[in-house]
Amino acid sequence: MAEVICVGVAFLDYVFEADLPTSNDSKTFARTYAQYGGGMAATASVAVVQLGGKASLWGRLGNDDTGEYIRSDLAHRGVLTEHIQRIEGAQSPVSSIVIGDKGVRQATVYPGQNLDSNADWLPLERISETSAVLVDPRWPEAAMATLERARINHIPAILDADIGPDPVPRELVELASHAIFSLPGLTQYTGTKDIAAALAKAREGTEAVVGVTAGPDGFYWVSDDEPEVHHIPAITIEAVDTLGAGDVFHGAFALAIGEGKSIKDAGRFATTAAGLKCGQSGGRDAIPSRAEVWDALALEDEA
Amino acid sequence: MAEVICVGVAFLDYVFEADLPTSNDSKTFARTYAQYGGGMAATASVAVVQLGGKASLWGRLGNDDTGEYIRSDLAHRGVLTEHIQRIEGAQSPVSSIVIGDKGVRQATVYPGQNLDSNADWLPLERISETSAVLVDPRWPEAAMATLERARINHIPAILDADIGPDPVPRELVELASHAIFSLPGLTQYTGTKDIAAALAKAREGTEAVVGVTAGPDGFYWVSDDEPEVHHIPAITIEAVDTLGAGDVFHGAFALAIGEGKSIKDAGRFATTAAGLKCGQSGGRDAIPSRAEVWDALALEDEA
Repeated sequence: MAEVICVGVAFLDYVFEADLPTSNDSKTFARTYAQYGGGMAATASVAVVQLGGKASLWGRLGNDDTGEYIRSDLAHRGVLTEHIQRIEGAQSPVSSIVIGDKGVRQATVYPGQNLDSNADWLPLERISETSAVLVDPRWPEAAMATLERARINHIPAILDADIGPDPVPRELVELASHAIFSLPGLTQYTGTKDIAAALAKAREGTEAVVGVTAGPDGFYWVSDDEPEVHHIPAITIEAVDTLGAGDVFHGAFALAIGEGKSIKDAGRFATTAAGLKCGQSGGRDAIPSRAEVWDALALEDEA
Repeated sequence: MAEVICVGVAFLDYVFEADLPTSNDSKTFARTYAQYGGGMAATASVAVVQLGGKASLWGRLGNDDTGEYIRSDLAHRGVLTEHIQRIEGAQSPVSSIVIGDKGVRQATVYPGQNLDSNADWLPLERISETSAVLVDPRWPEAAMATLERARINHIPAILDADIGPDPVPRELVELASHAIFSLPGLTQYTGTKDIAAALAKAREGTEAVVGVTAGPDGFYWVSDDEPEVHHIPAITIEAVDTLGAGDVFHGAFALAIGEGKSIKDAGRFATTAAGLKCGQSGGRDAIPSRAEVWDALALEDEA
């Protein structure tokens, strides 16, 4: 069984279905509310397990009730959590997410407080034995150490390059074997919205495969082998909840690359897994199984 | 010591300080995050205690972790909580509140689920012994029973008439001795934004004193004694957090009316208490003490 070590953040998400606010001083009433585990690396690690792989999460949480909820949800879903450090006096990360009509959403993201950034305690020697690593940019010290070790050990190293308070650090893009942006992340990183131009710009100075997940427009990437932009369309689905779809893509992609699949096959697998997730509500319960992804891929091949 | 029985909702508020979202599909990053107890009747009950009165909260919560957090916070702050019913299988109310620059805020309000609306168990016989009752419109069955009994017992009965999914029921306004709207609540109830016209319209068919809290514009009211609109300006304060200011006003107003003060004196007391609250962050910790309100009133009288 392939294993992905996921390095980065774990959140608690407060998720409301409601009309989106229409003004700066407003009160809207929600139809539903639920708490879900969230966070880029954490949700990706759940996707890896759900899609038939093995996943560890290396991360940091406060030693508060919120942190315990986040950790136990991950453990319950089969993610290995022994390398999540609980930090006394720190506040765990939480987000509030309002999902409006057609799955559009407004997220307010609080990254936590006093979460020690020191990454010296990470068991980097484990990287040589794993199938792939996946890092997010929210804990750069750990991402850097993980990407450096993965490069030395010739282990595939996927970077989830989403939008953040600051653009993704250039060093992370240069160290990854696969730097896969979100569309807002790519725009923030390159200053351009044109996908082909942005991918070309992001590739400057790196040997990494550089890709971008573009929601309903699918997945685009460029690599050294061929100069043109490759594209895999998204599956056709009525999106009811796109929350975490990018994280699911990254977990599925890292798993497939860890299994030795080509970028094209990994991209199809990941696009399909993320698309199926968007068709259901229920947070992480909506992440499809490997069998469901295979069925959807087989249907598409028949068509 | 005067006592106010507060009847209505208690919430858990997830409060973020962040830039407000600028589009329908956006992610913003919060500078601070905290959990606070909230809800109209509940926050008013805390204000009553903080301002030197005695307060009971009559309400409903789920038998979930959220409900326990809400109840224990109220008890810790000195509110009597033995008449809060915990309902098995119900979801407690939660809100997400994003506070932007200058205290403007966007609230997403989830009123809970499966909270039994039956109010037959309320100890209405207690009303004859209390100084005043304060009801919010979020649990209409309880508000109605409480206002009816208060009228029979000649106990002052204050209605907190804020904006809601539906306008405040007319029956509640007619039964209250003092129907005090928020500005959005009054606009929703009357269909007009002009304060004088709206107050006149809201008074039709009721003998209640009808008032409105207008944030930085202060407090306006009309009553049978004199036909003109009375006004008390707000205190001058740099607002950093207006969340719950209306609830504090209502708690302070009900306490002062329960102590036998005139509408004008109760309005000044409540306007000052709510204004001082807006000058501090920290949720319910920012509600001033009686001494602080007196000091501010004395300063104003000197000026």
